[in-house]
Amino acid sequence: MAGIIQPKVLKGFRDFLPTTEIPRRHLIRALEDHFSSYGYVPIDTPVLEYAEILLSKGGGETDKQTYRFTDHGGRDVSLRFDLTVPFARFVSAHKNELAMPFRRYHIAKAWRGENTQKGRYREFIQCDFDIVGTDSATADLEIMLMMAEGLRTLKAGEVTIRFNHRGLFNLLLEKLGIGEKTAEVLRIVDKLAKIGEAEVQNQLSALVGDEGAETLLDFIVAEEDNRATLAKMIRLAGAEDTGGNSPLGRLEAILAAVEDMGESARFTLDPSITRGLDYYTGIVFETFLTDLPRLGSVCSGGRYDNLTGLFMKEPVTGVGASIGLDRLMAGLEELGRLESASSNTDLLVMMLDESLMSHYQKLAQSFRAVGVRTEIYPEAKKMGAQFKFAESKGAKLALIVGGNEHENAVVTLKDLEKRENHENLSLQDALTKAQNLLTHS
Amino acid sequence: MAGIIQPKVLKGFRDFLPTTEIPRRHLIRALEDHFSSYGYVPIDTPVLEYAEILLSKGGGETDKQTYRFTDHGGRDVSLRFDLTVPFARFVSAHKNELAMPFRRYHIAKAWRGENTQKGRYREFIQCDFDIVGTDSATADLEIMLMMAEGLRTLKAGEVTIRFNHRGLFNLLLEKLGIGEKTAEVLRIVDKLAKIGEAEVQNQLSALVGDEGAETLLDFIVAEEDNRATLAKMIRLAGAEDTGGNSPLGRLEAILAAVEDMGESARFTLDPSITRGLDYYTGIVFETFLTDLPRLGSVCSGGRYDNLTGLFMKEPVTGVGASIGLDRLMAGLEELGRLESASSNTDLLVMMLDESLMSHYQKLAQSFRAVGVRTEIYPEAKKMGAQFKFAESKGAKLALIVGGNEHENAVVTLKDLEKRENHENLSLQDALTKAQNLLTHS
Repeated sequence: MAGIIQPKVLKGFRDFLPTTEIPRRHLIRALEDHFSSYGYVPIDTPVLEYAEILLSKGGGETDKQTYRFTDHGGRDVSLRFDLTVPFARFVSAHKNELAMPFRRYHIAKAWRGENTQKGRYREFIQCDFDIVGTDSATADLEIMLMMAEGLRTLKAGEVTIRFNHRGLFNLLLEKLGIGEKTAEVLRIVDKLAKIGEAEVQNQLSALVGDEGAETLLDFIVAEEDNRATLAKMIRLAGAEDTGGNSPLGRLEAILAAVEDMGESARFTLDPSITRGLDYYTGIVFETFLTDLPRLGSVCSGGRYDNLTGLFMKEPVTGVGASIGLDRLMAGLEELGRLESASSNTDLLVMMLDESLMSHYQKLAQSFRAVGVRTEIYPEAKKMGAQFKFAESKGAKLALIVGGNEHENAVVTLKDLEKRENHENLSLQDALTKAQNLLTHS
Repeated sequence: MAGIIQPKVLKGFRDFLPTTEIPRRHLIRALEDHFSSYGYVPIDTPVLEYAEILLSKGGGETDKQTYRFTDHGGRDVSLRFDLTVPFARFVSAHKNELAMPFRRYHIAKAWRGENTQKGRYREFIQCDFDIVGTDSATADLEIMLMMAEGLRTLKAGEVTIRFNHRGLFNLLLEKLGIGEKTAEVLRIVDKLAKIGEAEVQNQLSALVGDEGAETLLDFIVAEEDNRATLAKMIRLAGAEDTGGNSPLGRLEAILAAVEDMGESARFTLDPSITRGLDYYTGIVFETFLTDLPRLGSVCSGGRYDNLTGLFMKEPVTGVGASIGLDRLMAGLEELGRLESASSNTDLLVMMLDESLMSHYQKLAQSFRAVGVRTEIYPEAKKMGAQFKFAESKGAKLALIVGGNEHENAVVTLKDLEKRENHENLSLQDALTKAQNLLTHS
């Protein structure tokens, strides 16, 4: 005989018990409703794809972290490490079936074999939403407004959206004559919040010299208000073109709209936000909870000029963002705003007599039909054990029906919180009573 | 420069465009609500597990079909091929955190490298629901009632539940002295619907001789009603024990409850239903759509005495079922009952002037706040192009606001189906009008 196998999960992977999975499902459904209210539609793509497709960008870290293997048919395959590359492949494959501009959301798992010591998980849920097929300012604005609204919907409270335009940053680098060092500069600037100004200046000095480092640092530190910050950025980067699609024109259009909407307090122009990654080309942004800023960004993204370049010649521009659901849930929990439901049971039908099981089933169906989530205790155990079970499920009501009640076509409804019995009720009265007690509890 | 990569998915895997993903998400949410109304709670487990855990049963076919590889840490891992084995592992790992009896549902993907020529997919969604920790007849009944109710909720119409008890079948095999050939007999009997009575008899004869084959065939063919079928089963299997937990006692309890609930037409005792798999030990069942019987079973399951035997010594009994969502969706589509939504857009805000973008965003927020799913056209293209887009999204309404309307604080609401303009409306009137038009369309 085989021995007992230890029922453990892989490092960096997690089981979700009802206590966490119920609030997680509720968050996901609230996000689905939120995205849908903006006309975004869901799509789905395979978890497993050709490695060539997922890893074609050849990013070193990502490649190392991606789960990759050879399948039964000898194919070189990988588990997706994000939802962006699969979306690029999807848009390329179905371009002719999608009405452009195309707004989609995708809430699904992705996997990275990351070092779990950072408190990161190897299996995580991404919530991505994008508009592709338009390079308009209103699309940039919409994605940022959706983030803020979405987080409020999830009771995360007030947020600050820190945004920037990569194009203006690039202008500065060109003016400084260090355009070829863009990637390294971005990597350093991206660490500002983590390592501080002094260390960023040290590292930049080593890369581009003291003078360049000083200008860069001056550039990336935000001023007291958005207009002052923009004025400084224009001065340092020497930006002149204010056309609608120029970096400066785009920033000005966004700023004007934000001011007009009375959203200035929520939107901060922050030139240090660059999102590191190379594929962003326009507006970039990160979102922080006002009540928990040190949590870091819970939703970020930006505009990319050529999402689909790897898969087709015709470029597709887009703007999108991704919510880190794990981090957000941790934040909501810390703020005490994560729903604490661990059960779906409003009412427990007590089992007094197993021969009445069809009667209990019929009663339960009547309660469910009026919206009362109803569970039946499946064995005729002692009442004490059954009440204890009801309590462990947080059920507010119990339905007690023995042989006498059955014969007289009545029921007893017990309010478990007030420990109050409502006896000899007709089924109809019990249904009404239950609905009232649940609404007002 | 790297060449263009073909944006194709792996064989047996699928992209879901909004046209299919919207109805699929709606089905899943309807199932979540249905399961919750019975007090079932959601859980989640990792997609990737130790191969030792998933494959410990050592089933030949399953092993060959499972995606298995060595991860970065040298661990032997697999993608789950169903949700049952992970649930067994989950229950064993968290036994002390779960109030028993424990009712859970799990709707998630699983993967099998199956031969795709059968019209099967290598990536598919399972919808599992189980009650563990009780061996009661009411739990068996509840799972079957939930299947029937759930399918009606999804507009699949009337269903027939074909059920049986594996214990009675085992009694017969023992009486015939062929208990050691149970697995082979089950494999043959399970093919009855596919290969027909004559071929089943041939194969059984070769295995157990003509006489045994004749008795077996007699046994598995249902009579005209449940009571007659049961009488024949009792006679052939020589069943005598009618105790509550005996196979016969259990079948009689279920039959009595089904009759008492007026559900006899829906529940058919069918001794040919055995569910092949070895781990079922009690009640087993399959569900067929009355309007599309040849689709095959869309939901099936049964009772297992020892779910967790591989992971702990203490046995945990349970009963559960699994809905094949892909097959069910194919059936609903064939019946013309699959929702044909391909969009989440009720109203399109037309973009007449890009400088009004903050105004359009504010208007859109007002409509969303009253439940109107509102998309903004992101560029000031010709009206014709924008109306065509609205049509392609199935939007019922358009909001038209140019400079004049903006100055006068009015809007034009266009009913796109009736091609009717409602002009010079205040925002408040437009909101009410939009709600009315959407409710009554």
